[in-house]
Amino acid sequence: MAEVKLLGVSLSPFSRRVEWALKFKGVEYEFIEEDLQNKSPLLLQSNPVHQKIPVLIHNGKPISESMIIVEYIDETFEGPSILPKDPYDRAMARFWANFLDVKCITTIGKALFGKGEESDKAKEESLELLKILDNELKGKKFFVGDNFGFADIAANLMAFWLGILEEASGVILVTNEKFPNFCAWKDEYINCSQVKEYLPSRDALLAHFQARFQTAAAP
Amino acid sequence: MAEVKLLGVSLSPFSRRVEWALKFKGVEYEFIEEDLQNKSPLLLQSNPVHQKIPVLIHNGKPISESMIIVEYIDETFEGPSILPKDPYDRAMARFWANFLDVKCITTIGKALFGKGEESDKAKEESLELLKILDNELKGKKFFVGDNFGFADIAANLMAFWLGILEEASGVILVTNEKFPNFCAWKDEYINCSQVKEYLPSRDALLAHFQARFQTAAAP
Repeated sequence: MAEVKLLGVSLSPFSRRVEWALKFKGVEYEFIEEDLQNKSPLLLQSNPVHQKIPVLIHNGKPISESMIIVEYIDETFEGPSILPKDPYDRAMARFWANFLDVKCITTIGKALFGKGEESDKAKEESLELLKILDNELKGKKFFVGDNFGFADIAANLMAFWLGILEEASGVILVTNEKFPNFCAWKDEYINCSQVKEYLPSRDALLAHFQARFQTAAAP
Repeated sequence: MAEVKLLGVSLSPFSRRVEWALKFKGVEYEFIEEDLQNKSPLLLQSNPVHQKIPVLIHNGKPISESMIIVEYIDETFEGPSILPKDPYDRAMARFWANFLDVKCITTIGKALFGKGEESDKAKEESLELLKILDNELKGKKFFVGDNFGFADIAANLMAFWLGILEEASGVILVTNEKFPNFCAWKDEYINCSQVKEYLPSRDALLAHFQARFQTAAAP
């Protein structure tokens, strides 16, 4: 039995975050693909509170919530550090990871998937959040310091998945005119060595989300 | 000039979390009371993204978001550890702190402060979340292990502020019949040595929130 198992969905940015952290550290693991329409007993038993992927099972003990798993991996396995060493830089990395997860993903999710007034309000708020990121990322390759790390892992949804979700939903939030720094960062992110080889296929993701939007729009 | 400043609101559970962490470590600090109706230039400049308290300023460098500050304090200053030493226990502490902050506070806030359908839905969800906590806290004094720590600091709003908010709003979510383990934990929490002396006055808090609910209900 593998010492490290990951229950996930290969197209999910949250699963990918954990995979990146494991690959970053050189940890071997068994990936178990979950069907979210028919969750496995192992998933439900391992994450009874949220019943969500990803779940890392290490020596039989489950951990859930993607960025909590990433931090666990950083503290448990040898290899390059994911969080910076300096406590202030660590706080900044956690700050941006939290901003991306708690503020951006929730709001942008409503802008793309919501309806009516809720979606309109979320679109306005999303543009404000993107403005904050655009200011922060001016001239920057990574969120904190000179190395790809914790906040950059958290940013995968914004850097890669968002563009595909925009295309699939027809709701365009990011334009080069409005957010030039964010766009420059995003292009560099997608092509950087730590990321490029670990991204899922753009075509597969687009087809997946197009199908989801069509199902959602069906009468 | 003090090396450590805390911009906060003395009745806020989020400010108190940071104060507890500082007191836990024996760090001297200057508390600067903020007026949230008229935020100081220092607050706006120190936390331009969220424009919220608390903000810790250490040697001139600002950090925001209460639990990120608590972790910074744990990593920066000598003294007893706030997070457990073991990586799995640390992950569990972060898991419950995240659950309390991201799930409970948002949902319960809507249940108490929301209106109409939104509030009704949030009340139902709040009861489910309280059930999860009630199961988790069965026979437990602390969230993780035998020591007061990270998740317990995050739980201050649920253990102390919630009861007062219920009384001020007239919306009662927690009863001993429904959530006996949660109630037993809460009573012990409020009276434990790490907490008791650091709580604000119940009467002052109640008067504060009663005034807020009356203002909100005014035509």
